[in-house]
Amino acid sequence: MPLSRRSVLQGAVVSAAALAFPSRADDLAPVYAEIRRRHDETVKRIQQWIATPAIAAESLNSEEGVQQFIGLLKDAGFQSAARVPTDGKPGVFALLDAGAPRTLGLYFMYDVKQFDPREWTSPPLEGRLVDKPGFGKCIVGRGAVNQKGPEGAFLAALHAIRGAGRKLPVNLVLVAEGEEEIGSPHFPQIVRRPEVMQALSRCAGVEMPSAAQSADGTLEITLGAKGVIEAEIVSSGEKWGRGPGKDVHSSLRASLDSPAYHLVQALGTLVTADGVDPAIDGWFEKVKTLSPAEQQMIDAAAKHLDEAQMKKQFAVSHWAHDLPFREALARLAGQPTVNIEGLVGGYTGQGGKTVLPHRAVAKMDFRLVPDMTVPDCLAKLRAHLSKRGFADIEVNMTGGYDPNTTPADSSLIRAETATYRKAGLDPILWPRGGGSWPGYVFTEPPLKLAAGHFGVGHGSGAHAPDEYYLVESTNPKLRGLDDAVRSFVDFLYQI
Amino acid sequence: MPLSRRSVLQGAVVSAAALAFPSRADDLAPVYAEIRRRHDETVKRIQQWIATPAIAAESLNSEEGVQQFIGLLKDAGFQSAARVPTDGKPGVFALLDAGAPRTLGLYFMYDVKQFDPREWTSPPLEGRLVDKPGFGKCIVGRGAVNQKGPEGAFLAALHAIRGAGRKLPVNLVLVAEGEEEIGSPHFPQIVRRPEVMQALSRCAGVEMPSAAQSADGTLEITLGAKGVIEAEIVSSGEKWGRGPGKDVHSSLRASLDSPAYHLVQALGTLVTADGVDPAIDGWFEKVKTLSPAEQQMIDAAAKHLDEAQMKKQFAVSHWAHDLPFREALARLAGQPTVNIEGLVGGYTGQGGKTVLPHRAVAKMDFRLVPDMTVPDCLAKLRAHLSKRGFADIEVNMTGGYDPNTTPADSSLIRAETATYRKAGLDPILWPRGGGSWPGYVFTEPPLKLAAGHFGVGHGSGAHAPDEYYLVESTNPKLRGLDDAVRSFVDFLYQI
Repeated sequence: MPLSRRSVLQGAVVSAAALAFPSRADDLAPVYAEIRRRHDETVKRIQQWIATPAIAAESLNSEEGVQQFIGLLKDAGFQSAARVPTDGKPGVFALLDAGAPRTLGLYFMYDVKQFDPREWTSPPLEGRLVDKPGFGKCIVGRGAVNQKGPEGAFLAALHAIRGAGRKLPVNLVLVAEGEEEIGSPHFPQIVRRPEVMQALSRCAGVEMPSAAQSADGTLEITLGAKGVIEAEIVSSGEKWGRGPGKDVHSSLRASLDSPAYHLVQALGTLVTADGVDPAIDGWFEKVKTLSPAEQQMIDAAAKHLDEAQMKKQFAVSHWAHDLPFREALARLAGQPTVNIEGLVGGYTGQGGKTVLPHRAVAKMDFRLVPDMTVPDCLAKLRAHLSKRGFADIEVNMTGGYDPNTTPADSSLIRAETATYRKAGLDPILWPRGGGSWPGYVFTEPPLKLAAGHFGVGHGSGAHAPDEYYLVESTNPKLRGLDDAVRSFVDFLYQI
Repeated sequence: MPLSRRSVLQGAVVSAAALAFPSRADDLAPVYAEIRRRHDETVKRIQQWIATPAIAAESLNSEEGVQQFIGLLKDAGFQSAARVPTDGKPGVFALLDAGAPRTLGLYFMYDVKQFDPREWTSPPLEGRLVDKPGFGKCIVGRGAVNQKGPEGAFLAALHAIRGAGRKLPVNLVLVAEGEEEIGSPHFPQIVRRPEVMQALSRCAGVEMPSAAQSADGTLEITLGAKGVIEAEIVSSGEKWGRGPGKDVHSSLRASLDSPAYHLVQALGTLVTADGVDPAIDGWFEKVKTLSPAEQQMIDAAAKHLDEAQMKKQFAVSHWAHDLPFREALARLAGQPTVNIEGLVGGYTGQGGKTVLPHRAVAKMDFRLVPDMTVPDCLAKLRAHLSKRGFADIEVNMTGGYDPNTTPADSSLIRAETATYRKAGLDPILWPRGGGSWPGYVFTEPPLKLAAGHFGVGHGSGAHAPDEYYLVESTNPKLRGLDDAVRSFVDFLYQI
């Protein structure tokens, strides 16, 4: 869910950074030339990757997807790239030993989100090059920005370095999964293998390639992410022992309990009376308040961001509790949440149907902040429901992970900042992304590595129709594919 | 929704009625012979009718359906059968003047419920004759019992009388609609036309053909029906002015209100803390308690019905409030309800999706008992929500009607009872069906007519896959098509 990592700060230009690409050490000039020379090859590689969507939720193409990805890694110079079986879809563990003193960890995903071609203006698996007014030429396709475009740009950096006859300045340890879009349920099975743990423990940090520029050119470095529990909360007559055990005619409601109403009442207990904040027993026990340094980052962001534009972007007229902007931003970094993603029960078609359903489901997500943990929160949620007469309600976790935090002074973050600055871009530091990714497997014990996302460039529409990744920018604030590839080259030399 | 009319009393044989068809006045023997002679013709007519499904919810075939139905009426001897336009799908007003002293009103529907052929074991529009173990040969198809089979059997009675050279003993005034399955929103526009009102005002009552036998042979005469409001209760960021105006990433929940949670909280206020009874302000103000005569009917039913079998049928282990059987039955007749038919909001597909939806909908039905009325209850519901901070929540009524009541001593009900008894069947009187039908347009002022459902025979699966109507019974408790047609002949002579 890397898109969400940036969602907080879309909406405002922070500063008019110098946009000219500064001069560089001469020795990388042949590499940059190689990037330009290989531009079409890079575009084609991304398009071919888009053509095969691996979708874990639909058990679609995961085997094809992992094999194709392994091929891409070997082409890019990885000496080994092994399929790693899990209880779900397979992952990948790959090594590129450059004989360098330092080693960088990489986290990749080869899966993409579901899509409905009827909602797209060009075929989602074609990766067509489309002129997008105000942006430039873009690859449009499922996975274009999330994450095949940026990952493809990273691999292009490896091709360019090798193509220019250079040796890679760092060794690479790559772990990848095909279940990112379903909440990475088996990713720990990949990372926790002894040989993977050993390789990762040598790393200076773990990076995921991204297209970090928002539509307005804003660039954000996020020092961690909230955790998340995604779960289906299910009420059924079967489990409850009340109400019908199958859908019956709604006239019977006069003498029967309603599992759908049972769900509604259970959900009602999870939030405060105004519907905003978590009200689960003990939910805030382990919540760490934002540190003075994090508060300063929020102060800075609140000054620079355009509140009106953010509200317009989300079609919002009031923040929760009618909070001022600065406090709304602070909550995005520091507040746990209880959210209904979806409600499904009984008759969901057109019009009505006089049925008393035996089952109803709420798809929920719960965002966690340090030091909340998934097992502790799941236990608290279940205890809360039981105490209020909802012990029968099922809490079926479908994915999720603990929050993660990376220090601002880690070498990884310092290299990110330095590389962006060299590229003439001015990144904003942000304490914690509101979205989630499984960085905790790297940042938490025993590995305790820095972890983050990096990459010049822009794209949008992850999880939505017409997802795109900018290839040739006509917008002075945004960088295209070649600049993205160059940023990965620079980052590899910086770290 | 005539199926539901019987749902209360399915489950027990009330008494071992003599099942031999008793001898009749000799003068109807040629009519009965004609019924048998025309058996195949009747089956074929029903099958041809099933082949064209008019589905108002899908705006499918309504024009074809009304024209086909008008043809069926003219074939059966109606001198006039006019298409009646409405703001929705067209209705029909038809007259058969037999020069008789008495006139009977008829209520027909030509529409059927939606269906999904993949769920059926034979094609739903074929009306295939299928041997159903324990029942006999049945027509299987959408509309087989709801309501083309019984209506076709009624028309067959007219064909048989005319075919035997007899004159119809009563005049007929028929009103029909093509929107019964969406709650009859425009049926009053048909009935309230001056020429229709005038014709109906001469009627001894209004009858709808049905297949009144439950699977166990039980036969019920219902003296009215609850009313109903079907409505979509909608919460949206746009109307609320809080939360997002479009679906946004769920990480934003930390600083945004949730329209889905707003809906959950609004729904919570509509029922008591245990989730069972309506808690809408003033909801019980106009509720009439059951009369002593109605209480006696319930006493009698409670003695005769098999509670264990009913619970098994609905997969239920407890009645609401753990009530004893007799009180559970009384509530089916006398208690208003608040029911969630369906919940739809945000992401409803497989797994989860990290979205904060801008809109969520509860499909609801509210059953009304005398003397509640639709406009009064709608106003109370809206006032209740407004008072609690939910003024923005939309209450979009999609269909419904007031409750209706017909006296047990009306000539219509007496004719029903007498005809069933002559056929060797022992009907149970039941004060009020838990399901609903638009009988109020007949029973309430200004018409104040008796209204009911009548017909020997059996079928089931209305609104479900493999809907069927019994044609040739192998079950000694159940009657087939020819007996159904005969019951309509007898009823016409009885009234």
